[in-house]
Amino acid sequence: MPETGLPKTVPPRVGIVMGSDSDWPTMQAAGHALEEFGIAYEADVVSAHRMPDAMLAWGHAAHGRGLEVVIAGAGGAAHLPGMLAAVTPLPVIGVPVPLKHLDGLDSLLSIVQMPAGVPVATVSVGGARNAGLLAVRILASGDADLTARVLAFQDELRAVAEAKGEAVRRAVRPG
Amino acid sequence: MPETGLPKTVPPRVGIVMGSDSDWPTMQAAGHALEEFGIAYEADVVSAHRMPDAMLAWGHAAHGRGLEVVIAGAGGAAHLPGMLAAVTPLPVIGVPVPLKHLDGLDSLLSIVQMPAGVPVATVSVGGARNAGLLAVRILASGDADLTARVLAFQDELRAVAEAKGEAVRRAVRPG
Amino acid sequence: MPETGLPKTVPPRVGIVMGSDSDWPTMQAAGHALEEFGIAYEADVVSAHRMPDAMLAWGHAAHGRGLEVVIAGAGGAAHLPGMLAAVTPLPVIGVPVPLKHLDGLDSLLSIVQMPAGVPVATVSVGGARNAGLLAVRILASGDADLTARVLAFQDELRAVAEAKGEAVRRAVRPG
Amino acid sequence: MPETGLPKTVPPRVGIVMGSDSDWPTMQAAGHALEEFGIAYEADVVSAHRMPDAMLAWGHAAHGRGLEVVIAGAGGAAHLPGMLAAVTPLPVIGVPVPLKHLDGLDSLLSIVQMPAGVPVATVSVGGARNAGLLAVRILASGDADLTARVLAFQDELRAVAEAKGEAVRRAVRPG
Amino acid sequence: MPETGLPKTVPPRVGIVMGSDSDWPTMQAAGHALEEFGIAYEADVVSAHRMPDAMLAWGHAAHGRGLEVVIAGAGGAAHLPGMLAAVTPLPVIGVPVPLKHLDGLDSLLSIVQMPAGVPVATVSVGGARNAGLLAVRILASGDADLTARVLAFQDELRAVAEAKGEAVRRAVRPG
Amino acid sequence: MPETGLPKTVPPRVGIVMGSDSDWPTMQAAGHALEEFGIAYEADVVSAHRMPDAMLAWGHAAHGRGLEVVIAGAGGAAHLPGMLAAVTPLPVIGVPVPLKHLDGLDSLLSIVQMPAGVPVATVSVGGARNAGLLAVRILASGDADLTARVLAFQDELRAVAEAKGEAVRRAVRPG
Amino acid sequence: MPETGLPKTVPPRVGIVMGSDSDWPTMQAAGHALEEFGIAYEADVVSAHRMPDAMLAWGHAAHGRGLEVVIAGAGGAAHLPGMLAAVTPLPVIGVPVPLKHLDGLDSLLSIVQMPAGVPVATVSVGGARNAGLLAVRILASGDADLTARVLAFQDELRAVAEAKGEAVRRAVRPG
Amino acid sequence: MPETGLPKTVPPRVGIVMGSDSDWPTMQAAGHALEEFGIAYEADVVSAHRMPDAMLAWGHAAHGRGLEVVIAGAGGAAHLPGMLAAVTPLPVIGVPVPLKHLDGLDSLLSIVQMPAGVPVATVSVGGARNAGLLAVRILASGDADLTARVLAFQDELRAVAEAKGEAVRRAVRPG
Repeated sequence: MPETGLPKTVPPRVGIVMGSDSDWPTMQAAGHALEEFGIAYEADVVSAHRMPDAMLAWGHAAHGRGLEVVIAGAGGAAHLPGMLAAVTPLPVIGVPVPLKHLDGLDSLLSIVQMPAGVPVATVSVGGARNAGLLAVRILASGDADLTARVLAFQDELRAVAEAKGEAVRRAVRPG
Repeated sequence: MPETGLPKTVPPRVGIVMGSDSDWPTMQAAGHALEEFGIAYEADVVSAHRMPDAMLAWGHAAHGRGLEVVIAGAGGAAHLPGMLAAVTPLPVIGVPVPLKHLDGLDSLLSIVQMPAGVPVATVSVGGARNAGLLAVRILASGDADLTARVLAFQDELRAVAEAKGEAVRRAVRPG
Repeated sequence: MPETGLPKTVPPRVGIVMGSDSDWPTMQAAGHALEEFGIAYEADVVSAHRMPDAMLAWGHAAHGRGLEVVIAGAGGAAHLPGMLAAVTPLPVIGVPVPLKHLDGLDSLLSIVQMPAGVPVATVSVGGARNAGLLAVRILASGDADLTARVLAFQDELRAVAEAKGEAVRRAVRPG
Repeated sequence: MPETGLPKTVPPRVGIVMGSDSDWPTMQAAGHALEEFGIAYEADVVSAHRMPDAMLAWGHAAHGRGLEVVIAGAGGAAHLPGMLAAVTPLPVIGVPVPLKHLDGLDSLLSIVQMPAGVPVATVSVGGARNAGLLAVRILASGDADLTARVLAFQDELRAVAEAKGEAVRRAVRPG
Repeated sequence: MPETGLPKTVPPRVGIVMGSDSDWPTMQAAGHALEEFGIAYEADVVSAHRMPDAMLAWGHAAHGRGLEVVIAGAGGAAHLPGMLAAVTPLPVIGVPVPLKHLDGLDSLLSIVQMPAGVPVATVSVGGARNAGLLAVRILASGDADLTARVLAFQDELRAVAEAKGEAVRRAVRPG
Repeated sequence: MPETGLPKTVPPRVGIVMGSDSDWPTMQAAGHALEEFGIAYEADVVSAHRMPDAMLAWGHAAHGRGLEVVIAGAGGAAHLPGMLAAVTPLPVIGVPVPLKHLDGLDSLLSIVQMPAGVPVATVSVGGARNAGLLAVRILASGDADLTARVLAFQDELRAVAEAKGEAVRRAVRPG
Repeated sequence: MPETGLPKTVPPRVGIVMGSDSDWPTMQAAGHALEEFGIAYEADVVSAHRMPDAMLAWGHAAHGRGLEVVIAGAGGAAHLPGMLAAVTPLPVIGVPVPLKHLDGLDSLLSIVQMPAGVPVATVSVGGARNAGLLAVRILASGDADLTARVLAFQDELRAVAEAKGEAVRRAVRPG
Repeated sequence: MPETGLPKTVPPRVGIVMGSDSDWPTMQAAGHALEEFGIAYEADVVSAHRMPDAMLAWGHAAHGRGLEVVIAGAGGAAHLPGMLAAVTPLPVIGVPVPLKHLDGLDSLLSIVQMPAGVPVATVSVGGARNAGLLAVRILASGDADLTARVLAFQDELRAVAEAKGEAVRRAVRPG
C-alpha cells in the first residue's frame, strides 16, 4: 500500500481497527478504498476481549488524536464496534467478519443490534470495502472536492457495469 | 414536534424518508433524536417500489438541496436505502422496519447486504433512534460544538444508566 | 449459444438481466431453457446499484421494445427484480443468486418479500433454469403451440425420471 | 364479492386454490386484486394432502377448462403449488401462508425451492394480493388494454404514495 | 449390495424411493441398514414433480403390493414423502436430502411440517441410515425375533462406542 | 377422554410421555387421535432432565410392558425422544413442543438431528395429532382391520376437505 | 426478596448485572435461585454501552471485592457478559435476554460466540434461573454442604416432576 | 499430550467426555487448555445415545470420583451435556460440535436451551478451548494461586494481541 503516495506525515483521518490480525485480509479492503480517495488512515489490532482497557483507551483518544471516522471489524461475538461507539463521539462503522461457522450471521447480529443511544453503522458480512467507501462519504460532508470525487466514483461504477454488459450481450447475440 | 423551536426557515440538514406512512411510527424516533440536538430535518414518504422515478429524483437532488445525511427506513424487500445510496454521494443510513412476519430479518438482510461500491450504514431492526444519533455523529465531524454535545449526551446516557441501577440495587438489598 | 439457430433478426421476447457479469454463470441457464423452446431473448448487465438511472430506463422501455417477460437475477441485497417490477407492467421473474456468505437466504428474502402492489415471481436460490421455464409458461398462455411444447417437455421430464429409476432398481435388485 | 359485477356466465381465467378454507382470509386478497382488473376467477379448496387425486385431477384439467393462470396458497409443508405445477402447463403462482409457528419460513421454502424443470412463481409470505397482481401482469402479456390498466394501476400506486407523504411532511413541518 | 444373500424371490417389505437418482448416494444407507437386518426392500426413483401421476399410483399401490413401510428421500421443496403419505395407509419415513444451498433446512421443513391428518416420520438431514433403522423398528412391532435383533444391535452400538473411548483415553493418559 | 368407552382393563399399546405437564395441552391431541381409532394408550410425565433414571427405566421397561409405540413430546433442548429411543427397541415418535421463544425451531432440531443408529420419527412443531396418527399407521402394519380404518380415515379427510371448498366456492360465485 | 433472611452484612458471593433495569424482570430469577440456596448476592445495572468505563471498572474490581461468580444479562448486541469476562478472572455466566424482535437469537449469538481465550458460560434465552443454579454448582465445587444441597434440589426436581405425572395419568385413565 | 509432565498418579479434576471419537479433534483443545494450567483431566467417549446407561452411570459417579467440572461435547441432537447435568451436581460445560450440515446451529440449540432447573454452561460452536478455560476459572474460585495464573494468562493474551497489531501497523505505514 505504500504506493498511494501519501507521505507518512499526513495525519490519518480514519482509524481501521480489528479484533485480530487474522481479520486483516478482510479489513484491508477498507484501506484500499480510502487510498483510492487519497484519505490517510491508520490500521491496528485493538481487541475488545484480549486488550479491553487498551481498547477503551484507544476509543477515548480517537477523537482527540484527530481521527474523524472509526472502522471496526470483528467476528463471532463481535463486540469491538459497539464498545468503541460507546466511548467515542465519532461515527463508528462496523464490519461483520465471517468466521468458520454460521457464515457471519453471528457477527452481523452482534454488531448491528445495538441498543438505542449507541449507534454503529453496519455494512454487509465481509463488506470492508463498503466500510471504506462509507467513511469517504462521511468525510465528504461539507467537502465539495471530495463530494465531487464520490460522484466521479459513482460515474465510474456505472461505466464499468455498462462495459460488463457488453460481454454478456455478445455471448447471447454474437455478431 | 413543532415544539423544537426550530423556525421553519432553517434549511433541513437531514432527510428522513420511508417507503410508506405506516413506517412513520417507527421512523419518527429518528426525528426526535435530531431535534434533541437542534438539527433541522425533513421527512417524507419516498417509495422505491411505488414511485421509483420520484425516488431516484429525490436521491439525485438530495445533495444539491443542501441535505448532508439521508435516513431511509423500509421493510420486507427493503430497497429504498440501497437505491438512494446508488444516486447520492451522501451517507445513507438504513433502518430495517419489521413487518408482520419474519421479525425484520428480511428487512435487515435486504438493507445491509449491499454490493461493494454502494454502502448503506445499517442500524438495528426498528432502530430509528440510533439512525438519528448516527446522523448527529456524522454531522459532528469537524463541528467542535456538536461533538461536545455528543459527548455530553454520552455523559447523560451514563448518568441515567447509573441511576437505573439504584432501583435494582435497592430491590435486592433494601436498606 | 449461437447454435440455437435463432437468426439475430428475431426480436427477443424475454429480457434476461443481472446485476453483474459474475451472475452470468448462474443466469445463463435461463437462456438455455428459452432456447430449448425456440424463444428469442436478450441478456444484459443492468445493475440497480451501479447504474440506477439506466436500470430504470431499461425497465421503462422494456414493454415498448416488445419484451414480454423480464428475468432478473441478483444477489445479496438484491434490488434489481423489485425495481424493474416497479417500472414495467411486464411480469418480472426474480432469481436469487447465492453469494459467498448466507447461502442465498439474503438474496431470496430481498427478492421475494415485495410489498403489496409490486409483485416479483421468485424462483429458487440459483434457480435460473426454472426462471426460463416459467417465462415459457407465461408466453404459452394463449399460444396453443407453445403450450403443447410445454406439455411435451413435461412428458420428457417424466420419461427421464422413469429411466433414472432403472439404474437404482438394478443396483438394488440386480437381475 | 358479487359486487364486482362480473356475470356468473363469464368463464374464469384464473383459478385460486388453497389447501384449507382456513387459508381463505389470506387468499381472498388475490381475488380482490383480480376483481379490480375485471378478471373473472374461481376459488376452491384443493388440498394436496387430503384430496391428492382430486388435486392432481384439478391440475390436469385446469388448462383444458380454460384457466390461464393458477394461484395456489398453502402453509407449512406447502406442497400444493409445486404439485399443481407438475401437472399443468400453466404458470402457477405460489403464496406461502404463514402458520402459527415459524412465521411462514417453512411455507416459503417449501414453495420456492422447486427442482429444475417445474417452476413455481413465488410471492411473499402472505402475499396473496401480489399473487393476484402477478396473474394480471401475466394475462396482460399481449393484451394492450390490460397492459394499459396495469400502467394506470402503477400510476395510482404512485399517486397514493405521494399523497401519503403529505401527512408525514406536515407532521414534521406543520405549516 | 447383492452380497446380502437375499434371494430375489423374497418379496420386498420396504420401499425406498427418491426424487432423483442423484439422491441415491444419500439414500442407499437406508438400504444398507435394512440388509443388516435381513429385510428385503426395493428402491426406485419416484419423482413427485417429474412423474406426479406415477408417483401417486406408486403410493396407492404400495400397500396392496405387500410393502409395509415407505422410505422417501427428497431435497429442496421436498414433496415426495408428504404426497406418498397422502395416498398410502402405510407409515412413511421422510429423509431430508441436503442440496447445494441452505444445508438441507429447506428439505427438512418441507418434509416435517405436514398438516394434521397426514403424518410423515421425519429423520435428520441426510439421515437415510436412521430411516432404515426406523423401518426396522416399525417392522419389529409384534415380531419377537426382529425385536431381539434390534436389542442386539443396540448392544453392539454400545460396545462400539465403548471401544472408541479406549483410543481417547489412551491419547490422554498413555500408559 | 373417558368417553372413548375403552375399558380401563384394556392394556395400553401406545405410551405418550412428555417432559412436563405443561406439554399436556399440546400432547393430548395425540391421545385424541388414538381414541378415534380405539387404540388404548397411557400418558405420563417422564422428564429426561428432572427424573433421568426413572426416564431410562421407563424406556427400558416400555417394550416388556407391552407397549408397541412410544410418543414423546418435549421443548427447547428436547432430549426425551432421543433418550428413550436409545433404550427401547420400539419406534419412538418425537413431537417438538414450541416454547416461548424461537418458535419451536430449537425443539425441532434437538429432536430430529439424531445420530446414526438411534432414529426418532419426528413430526411437525406442535404436531401431536400427527404423532398419534403415525402411531396408528405403525400399529396398522399387518393389521388388515386397522389398515382399513386408516383408509377410511383418509376418505373422510378427503370428504371434509371437499366440503370445505363449497364455502369458498360460494363466497366467490354466489349462486 | 428481603424475606430470604440473609442479613445485609453477609458479603455477596455472586454479582448479578444487567445492561438495563428493563432486564430486571428477566434477571431476578437468577437471584431467586441463589436465595433458595442461601447464597448472598448483589444486583446492579452495569451497561457495557452506556457506562463502558464503569463497566470495565466493575469487572476489574469484582474479584478483589470478594465476588466469586458473575452473572450478566443483556439483549440484542449483548456485549456485557463478554466484556466482563475479558477483565475478570472469575467465571462469567451470560443470560441472553430476548428483545422485541428476533426472539433472543441475536442476544444468544452475541453472548455465546466468544473468541478463544475469553469464555462465557451461556445459558438459554431468558434462562436467568439456570444462571443462578449454575452459579450455585460452581460455588459448590469443594463445598460438601452446598453440593449436598444441590443433590437435594435435584431430588426435589424429580419428586415434583413425578407428581406432575399424576395429573396427566389421571386425565387419561380416570379411576 | 504426555509432555505436560503430569504424573499419571495425579487424580483428574476435570472430565472431558464426548459422544464419539470423531469429536476428539474438536474436543482436545479443551485438554490443551487445562494442560497449560497444569490441571489434570481425563477424557473419554460417553455417548448419550449409544451407551445411555453407562452415560448416566458416568454422570452419577463423576462427583464421587473426585471430578470437579465436566466438559461434554456433542453434535446434532446433542443430548450429552444436558443429560449429564441432570445426574451430577457438578457444573457441566457444553461444547456444540458442528456436524456436516447446519453449521452447528442444531448442536448449539440442543445444548443451550435447557429447561429451568438443569443448567449447562454453553460455549461457542466448536469452542472447546474456551470450555477448558472456563473450567480453569471455575476451579480458580477460592484458589488464589490458580486465580493469579488466570490473571497472568489474560495479561499474556493482551500482550500477544498488542504484538499482532505491529504487523498490521507496519503494513499500512511502513517505516
